[in-house]
Amino acid sequence: MRFRLKGYLELSGSIPEEAIDEVKGFLGEICETLFLRGVPRGREEEGARLVGWRVEGDKFHVEIESGRYVRAHVAFVRLRNALAGFLGSRFGVGVRSSRVFDYVLEFELEREPLEPVSVLFARDVKFDGRKVTVFLEELDDTALERNYSDRIISRIREKVSRQYVSGKGEFTRTVKRNVRGFERYKLSEDPTEVAVKLGWIKEYPAAGIWQIMPPMAALIRAMEGLIVDMVARPLGFQEVMLPRLIPLDVEYRKGHFGIANEIIWACPPISRDPKDFEDLIDYVEITGGPPPAELLKEKVRPPMYGLSYAQCEPFYEMFHKEIVDLDLLEKEPITLFDRNGPTYRWESGGLRGMERLNEFHRVEFVFLSTPDKCVEIRDAILERTEKVVGEILDLDYRVDATTAVYLEHAGKTEEEEGGEGLVKTYDLTVLLPFQTKSRPEAELEVASFHVHTDFYAKRFSFKDKKRRTVFTGCAGLGPSRFAYVFLVRHGFDFEGWPAEVKKYIGEKLPELPRMLTWPKG
Amino acid sequence: MRFRLKGYLELSGSIPEEAIDEVKGFLGEICETLFLRGVPRGREEEGARLVGWRVEGDKFHVEIESGRYVRAHVAFVRLRNALAGFLGSRFGVGVRSSRVFDYVLEFELEREPLEPVSVLFARDVKFDGRKVTVFLEELDDTALERNYSDRIISRIREKVSRQYVSGKGEFTRTVKRNVRGFERYKLSEDPTEVAVKLGWIKEYPAAGIWQIMPPMAALIRAMEGLIVDMVARPLGFQEVMLPRLIPLDVEYRKGHFGIANEIIWACPPISRDPKDFEDLIDYVEITGGPPPAELLKEKVRPPMYGLSYAQCEPFYEMFHKEIVDLDLLEKEPITLFDRNGPTYRWESGGLRGMERLNEFHRVEFVFLSTPDKCVEIRDAILERTEKVVGEILDLDYRVDATTAVYLEHAGKTEEEEGGEGLVKTYDLTVLLPFQTKSRPEAELEVASFHVHTDFYAKRFSFKDKKRRTVFTGCAGLGPSRFAYVFLVRHGFDFEGWPAEVKKYIGEKLPELPRMLTWPKG
Repeated sequence: MRFRLKGYLELSGSIPEEAIDEVKGFLGEICETLFLRGVPRGREEEGARLVGWRVEGDKFHVEIESGRYVRAHVAFVRLRNALAGFLGSRFGVGVRSSRVFDYVLEFELEREPLEPVSVLFARDVKFDGRKVTVFLEELDDTALERNYSDRIISRIREKVSRQYVSGKGEFTRTVKRNVRGFERYKLSEDPTEVAVKLGWIKEYPAAGIWQIMPPMAALIRAMEGLIVDMVARPLGFQEVMLPRLIPLDVEYRKGHFGIANEIIWACPPISRDPKDFEDLIDYVEITGGPPPAELLKEKVRPPMYGLSYAQCEPFYEMFHKEIVDLDLLEKEPITLFDRNGPTYRWESGGLRGMERLNEFHRVEFVFLSTPDKCVEIRDAILERTEKVVGEILDLDYRVDATTAVYLEHAGKTEEEEGGEGLVKTYDLTVLLPFQTKSRPEAELEVASFHVHTDFYAKRFSFKDKKRRTVFTGCAGLGPSRFAYVFLVRHGFDFEGWPAEVKKYIGEKLPELPRMLTWPKG
Repeated sequence: MRFRLKGYLELSGSIPEEAIDEVKGFLGEICETLFLRGVPRGREEEGARLVGWRVEGDKFHVEIESGRYVRAHVAFVRLRNALAGFLGSRFGVGVRSSRVFDYVLEFELEREPLEPVSVLFARDVKFDGRKVTVFLEELDDTALERNYSDRIISRIREKVSRQYVSGKGEFTRTVKRNVRGFERYKLSEDPTEVAVKLGWIKEYPAAGIWQIMPPMAALIRAMEGLIVDMVARPLGFQEVMLPRLIPLDVEYRKGHFGIANEIIWACPPISRDPKDFEDLIDYVEITGGPPPAELLKEKVRPPMYGLSYAQCEPFYEMFHKEIVDLDLLEKEPITLFDRNGPTYRWESGGLRGMERLNEFHRVEFVFLSTPDKCVEIRDAILERTEKVVGEILDLDYRVDATTAVYLEHAGKTEEEEGGEGLVKTYDLTVLLPFQTKSRPEAELEVASFHVHTDFYAKRFSFKDKKRRTVFTGCAGLGPSRFAYVFLVRHGFDFEGWPAEVKKYIGEKLPELPRMLTWPKG
């Protein structure tokens, strides 16, 4: 690794001509001490060196080179601080600010990139085999102190290593398969069209969103009831109501900007003053239709929230900068669940069926405890969910151990399975006798079960009082999808449904609102 | 009223010099017929007159004046259509398009404006006492056919008449008052601080949104249960799940652009391709924080949905262009309710308490039937809600007859009470022994009850098979607010709560997730 930096300090005044020798002496000292502090013995050539300096009016120019230890920008900051003290006390001259205007980073990758990558803040990135040269300009104090240059190197490494990963499939292995055959399934094709014809769902002028009419609402509530009564309550989970608007800081800590392309963002209006909207209202009233998108865009602020995507975002935020006691939580772990209304994904491609939605329902389980306890809880949720899906709903399904989705959310890929073969994610996928409407797969994932290790403890800065490792986990069980696969297995005739499901609904299904022109079936 | 219009027709070719006399004759005929068609006998001077015309190459210029009957732009369209037929058949010349480039409207207001108003599409609007002159330019075919000019006149009338209305208060009268005195109330100040200290709610980094922790979630669910069991079910309401993302067309039909300044808008990402977000992710990864708002704004499309504000928006959309049978619906009205998660308002001012929120819970009742039946249903919901609030929750409250909120939403004000003294809106307001955190009022509206007449039937184009008047209504009961006023009356000690509420919760309140640093109380 090689770092070459050019920059200057802006002084509050100029240094007296006669003092230059004294400055020279001080700089020589710095090079012997600060520029080598922390460098392992015998690796001094990989510390930092001052290769040039000059004073021009109130600008103190420096040029620094370094290897991997005491990187040039770190040396630059050390130099700045030391010089500020020295110049201040000796000549009454202060350091106003510092600026790096040219910084070249050289490092090696483990593998040659398959194609070149670029990165924000870099004027250029050059590749020569495994060797990378990054050209930076304009690093201010924040960029220096927050160590942008090291993060730029990590980011490039990550982008290149991602070129070698071809998706989630690579890490997936099936750990269980519960298959009795599709003969007992009532439907052999996607239930969406029949549901529309029967009026259980009604079209709504937004892709991936349906009006959920009384019979379907009753079925979804029954699925929710099963999940709460058969999984959440017996395991001691308590209900919370997690917000659905996720502020940008929380999105950041959750690592969700890595999936900004899948999130629907929420923007408050530019003001509360109706005067600011008068042209918009004029437009609507005079033309007799909604305003053009661009006019409406002028009336909103930049996004202030993401619409909840994972549902559990606010759970980790609940612990932000808090301290917990794992002695207590080992015995009584924190176990909460949430069913506070729909959550949102901006799904790709044509959404045609009711199995893949932009607005959908999920019961979200969240938990926090010791590593062992979190794995135990996650496994217990999986076990009980398997009972609901396999026994009560009587469906064929598969359980896969797979890539941790929380890493995917943060735009990362897992490079190895975590400590002692810990499986971070299980997916529960129901097998179907047909391809779903929106994907070329004869299956549907209906639940997933995660242990995040201390990933969120770190990102949301919460700690055990004795600094022991705090784990979190979550599990999402989708009543919308449970209802879909239930219909495939048991059909639309209420009479034949299992008693465990009927008990949530009553004697019969609720009726449709009556119209002459609907349902068209 | 006076209308003066200058415009031209763009022809597919020029008219032969020798045909001009024939054209003149045809125009004379038009002036006698088309320009006066529909004008009441004896009011011919208020029809339209062709005050000038000339042909320049392939442009056929005309100048038209009119009174209130056959307004100049209507005469212009009639002229265009007639001339297209005549020129086509006689000379093989077509009319390509038409354009009005100068249109002056003069009309009188009922009252002199308190201050001048402007309007979109008008270059200028001049006032002289009650007399208004509007200067329009550039009306294309759409603007002519969709009658922008008449709507501009209505819009100006509306803006001026609104100057004389000083808010909702004017139309409010109290119809009931149930007051027994605050002595029995457990709290004499806002419960927010105590709720935070006890950990029933936890701060969340977004104004007007709280983390709702297990005890509070249990209380809100109990309020929801009371509303469903004591109001919705006995009145035969069935549950539906209404979408929370409201597409712009539905917002338009609902009349919600009039309150665009109170709606939180939702924007999908510019694409699903992660490549388009690479600079955003670079920014986040390199700087270690959320992206600047402006960079995020570049990554989202213009708003595609509003976040549900009234909750009932999708209900009317359910009937869009459908036909119903009031013979049936008189006996079995359509009665649905929704509690499909939170809805959203962008509240003004500082939100400090838990009584006024940007994200909040409401059970929404919606119904559709004959006028009488809708009033009857609305009144029955009010009556049962009064029982819950007054008897079970044992609160002091007031019922006001007030301005129809659906008109307010559409940016309108009610100019008179509707047919036969029909009250369109009742508000149920709980009286409090203190001013709430966010408003200088010692009260809180917890529910409202509406009959919309055929306002939404018209806007969403649904009809009875025999064209009888179709009414709709809605009522919103807020469990978040019920919980708030409940705490004021009954305090935080579960033991003393009414049995009707406790039965929804169990033996005791659920416990808090345990942290060493929280709750701070």
